Amino acid sequence: MAISATDLNLNDYIRSIPDYPKPGILFRDITPLLASPAALRQAIDTMADHFANRRIDLVAAAEARGFIFAAPLALKLGAGVIPIRKPGKLPCHTVSQCYSLEYGTDTLHVHRDDVPQGSRVLVVDDLLATGGTVEACCKLVEKVGGTVAGCAFLIELAGLNGRARIGQYDVFSVLSYEGA
Amino acid sequence: MAISATDLNLNDYIRSIPDYPKPGILFRDITPLLASPAALRQAIDTMADHFANRRIDLVAAAEARGFIFAAPLALKLGAGVIPIRKPGKLPCHTVSQCYSLEYGTDTLHVHRDDVPQGSRVLVVDDLLATGGTVEACCKLVEKVGGTVAGCAFLIELAGLNGRARIGQYDVFSVLSYEGA
Repeated sequence: MAISATDLNLNDYIRSIPDYPKPGILFRDITPLLASPAALRQAIDTMADHFANRRIDLVAAAEARGFIFAAPLALKLGAGVIPIRKPGKLPCHTVSQCYSLEYGTDTLHVHRDDVPQGSRVLVVDDLLATGGTVEACCKLVEKVGGTVAGCAFLIELAGLNGRARIGQYDVFSVLSYEGA
Repeated sequence: MAISATDLNLNDYIRSIPDYPKPGILFRDITPLLASPAALRQAIDTMADHFANRRIDLVAAAEARGFIFAAPLALKLGAGVIPIRKPGKLPCHTVSQCYSLEYGTDTLHVHRDDVPQGSRVLVVDDLLATGGTVEACCKLVEKVGGTVAGCAFLIELAGLNGRARIGQYDVFSVLSYEGA
């Protein structure tokens, strides 16, 4: 997207909360950006512009915050939405993928038959941190026959190097912070 | 919205799953609608058209499926998004509201300071069933100083009469099923 004089500085709409959810973590709170019609629109437009010529068929996102970005991005790109969910939430046959959290593991599911073979799927989330969640989403897309056409994030915490785990894809972040 | 000859029958994009998540429940699965670019667009446009002249400042939604509809509806209406979340997810001062589930209770939170006084807030969710979740969301909006300008749903299960719990508001559903 060409930067115009009227563009907002989206960093102004990210609130940094020290020691949340625990000491030593600087939490990047996106709720001020969401609450601003202009900032929300600019964030979605910036993501959509990057992937506008990538022939995106579907936008996949993991609950819960990823869901906020999936549908507006899909509508801009002329795509549909694939929800990736925690266990027990999808009623049809699913494929699952475990992934590591800081302590323990978690599992995500996707409907087995909702992604037509060869569909080009953009995976979106609010935050790229260590990359565990998005890596699991990409594996799910590929397990059900889709092609990962890219990964889009509102915020990238570059210091955590999550990008290395999805280095084979076209990764785009609207905002990037050097620290963790 | 005027019905045009090219409108889809959105009922064709809702998959009914008997006995999910438990015997006797007919689950209305919205994932085929989400996966269809045209059906998703028509659903969002239908909601937005109903509230187009209601001066909506903010669209509030509870996680997780409500999040899918909040941002596209907000962008269409020139509004921002207010996420309503389960405990422990919002980093700033919150206001909470308990509500009844079939067994037990649950709690939702909203940031105390993200809704300017007097803002006109549209509450959106995928499903109106017994109305417990949306009633809690409306109470939260009012607790933090907003005005509930209406409630929008993709699907209403009219037999469960959830509409009675939010009868003071402008309630709009894209699809309605007589049964529970």
